[in-house]
Amino acid sequence: MGKPGTVIIGQSGGPTAVINQSLVGIVESCLAQPAAFTRVLGAIHGIHGILDGDLCDFSAEDRANLEVVAATPSAALKSVRLKPTPEICERVLARFKEFDVRAFFYIGGNDTAETTHIINEMAVRDGYELACFHCPKTIDNDLRVTDHCPGYGSAAKWVAQAFMGDNLDNRSMGGLKINVVMGRNAGWLTAASALARIFPQDGPHLIYCPEVDFSVESFCADVARVYRELGRCVIAVSEGIHGPGGADIIDLGETDSHGNKQLSGSGALGDFLAGKLKAFLAAAAPGRKHRIRADTFGYLQRCFPGVVSEVDATEARRAGRAAVAAVLAGGRSGSIAFRRQAGAYAVETFVTPLTTVAKDTRAMPRDWLNAEGNDVVSAKFLPYVQPLVGVLPAIGQLALTRVVAAKTRQ
Amino acid sequence: MGKPGTVIIGQSGGPTAVINQSLVGIVESCLAQPAAFTRVLGAIHGIHGILDGDLCDFSAEDRANLEVVAATPSAALKSVRLKPTPEICERVLARFKEFDVRAFFYIGGNDTAETTHIINEMAVRDGYELACFHCPKTIDNDLRVTDHCPGYGSAAKWVAQAFMGDNLDNRSMGGLKINVVMGRNAGWLTAASALARIFPQDGPHLIYCPEVDFSVESFCADVARVYRELGRCVIAVSEGIHGPGGADIIDLGETDSHGNKQLSGSGALGDFLAGKLKAFLAAAAPGRKHRIRADTFGYLQRCFPGVVSEVDATEARRAGRAAVAAVLAGGRSGSIAFRRQAGAYAVETFVTPLTTVAKDTRAMPRDWLNAEGNDVVSAKFLPYVQPLVGVLPAIGQLALTRVVAAKTRQ
Repeated sequence: MGKPGTVIIGQSGGPTAVINQSLVGIVESCLAQPAAFTRVLGAIHGIHGILDGDLCDFSAEDRANLEVVAATPSAALKSVRLKPTPEICERVLARFKEFDVRAFFYIGGNDTAETTHIINEMAVRDGYELACFHCPKTIDNDLRVTDHCPGYGSAAKWVAQAFMGDNLDNRSMGGLKINVVMGRNAGWLTAASALARIFPQDGPHLIYCPEVDFSVESFCADVARVYRELGRCVIAVSEGIHGPGGADIIDLGETDSHGNKQLSGSGALGDFLAGKLKAFLAAAAPGRKHRIRADTFGYLQRCFPGVVSEVDATEARRAGRAAVAAVLAGGRSGSIAFRRQAGAYAVETFVTPLTTVAKDTRAMPRDWLNAEGNDVVSAKFLPYVQPLVGVLPAIGQLALTRVVAAKTRQ
Repeated sequence: MGKPGTVIIGQSGGPTAVINQSLVGIVESCLAQPAAFTRVLGAIHGIHGILDGDLCDFSAEDRANLEVVAATPSAALKSVRLKPTPEICERVLARFKEFDVRAFFYIGGNDTAETTHIINEMAVRDGYELACFHCPKTIDNDLRVTDHCPGYGSAAKWVAQAFMGDNLDNRSMGGLKINVVMGRNAGWLTAASALARIFPQDGPHLIYCPEVDFSVESFCADVARVYRELGRCVIAVSEGIHGPGGADIIDLGETDSHGNKQLSGSGALGDFLAGKLKAFLAAAAPGRKHRIRADTFGYLQRCFPGVVSEVDATEARRAGRAAVAAVLAGGRSGSIAFRRQAGAYAVETFVTPLTTVAKDTRAMPRDWLNAEGNDVVSAKFLPYVQPLVGVLPAIGQLALTRVVAAKTRQ
């Protein structure tokens, strides 16, 4: 590896249920190599903490407590959403030099990989020996290169369980139910709702992802068809759906420092679609009353304690350890990725250049969604997602053998 | 007991995570007494199934599968929301006579108890031998007489875990976060958010229940104060909040057949309050940007597979068995209730007259909420709710010992 020195670790972007597994994976691996990593520091609120000198010392942390933290959702070092300008990145690098930082681990999504990349380029330019590694996390599962992202399996598990319950609720109460799922650019998490289908006629009956242009008219017609057939309909809609050319379905106004629109933290999209359905059904059959509801899953789906995929937790830890191993092996920069092995589910980690992960995101393959764009292709998507989520709660239903039928058989 | 004959069991109102435990408790107890209960039938969609003759035979159900069904959320017999007019109840009783029904078990809330009561009164009037028992369920925990209601413990557990995760999320990301919790008339479920507080400064920082008149102005001032102190704020708001005299906070329009307004299935209240906060903060400090989000927990909180209180599941089963035991002991009508024992947590069941449970609901005692009406009184509420919810996921946080402080100590 390069020069021994201080390590700084940060967490950035939206939290996940297992982001602290990656953190603890990095911390424990660094603490185990004191000759290489002379001080192991955490940056509070990511690069904000580096700029402000708000840093914590991991040698002061209780080791047993680190295990509890690893199993706790959300970013234990606190997070940040800050578009890193070149000027900010220069200041970060100046801080690194000041603290003799020789390894930087930044856990986050594609924007975080971009920040890591810019800092790395500046260090190379200055001839300053610094290892810069990005450790992937995102419930959106939209990082390029890697088979999947730590954080996704747990969020997918939560979405699957939510739809299992909601399908049972809708089966019991009837009517139309829209559930809006997170996912700005890609439908991976919305698609995970398909895991909720256990028995024939189970919902979600329709699944809309951002990979296919959304049409309110087609949506209403789809729902009305299912409603006619089953007397009910459960619908999964990604918060990231858009019209042709990325046109907004509704205008929510607010944007963050990366220029991303605020999608979560508002029930507006679900309520808008429920209103459209109501109007559509009223026009088709005036006077009939319909039970139409919308829930927006919001922030719950990304760090719900107690609903964590074991595979996801284990792999997030591995990703953290792999980042440190890459530095010890002499790696100077990169992002940790997973490659799926042939046969029974297993993954290996590898290092991919930061530029291959930064900035752009990865959508679902178009042919994993059906031609109509209102469902997944189960044979393609389910074998991919099932091992990441693991075992789901058992769901039973009654045979409901009708009395008249029973009499007939006697 | 009274005359041997057919049993009919139904489920009514909103589903819960453990309503099928009560169902299976009744079914298994009845099937074990074939001399008393000659046929054990289920009504599909409650009294709808009775009126339409849509009945299933529990002797045809697989016994091992019944255990899986018991552990599955939502109403396995499917549910109904139908205001029972005297005319409808007369038709139900006519059906009972036709099928030689001698025992009727109806699982539901206060409206369900009212239906059971009306049918019982008509049977008494006609001198028709019929046992009518109500088995309690409601996540709202708002039935009178009983210490608590089956369904509440599991929903409270879900709300507690949701706030644990959301507090961690907010701690990591900052800003203001409103979470709208179910509960039309009473704040029991919203109050359960207080279970999420593990460490000092943990949210929810403010809790608003329908027991106290809500003022948008006080709400904004409360939130601004916490925001100033902590740089963040997590707020629990009951969907049932109202102004003086029950005045609507916002007008949602739709009502159900019981005259209840539609509160859930829309993000409108949360979005309204977020808008008010935004305007309040903009007026106080123009130009400053704030991260303000609202999530409406919606239907997820009432039947989420995998998040079930063990105590709740066990007690729901007991309630079902107790209803059958009451009939076998000669009881003619009533509702099953729980009485909490002194000392370590334990309950006994007892029968209370249907009229004591029907129609009206029970709010939280006013003195379990603080004088300002923006929090629970933990010393009173937590000992009540903790045993109903059981063990919650472990939450850890880092010591975050700052580098400068560490240097000072050297």
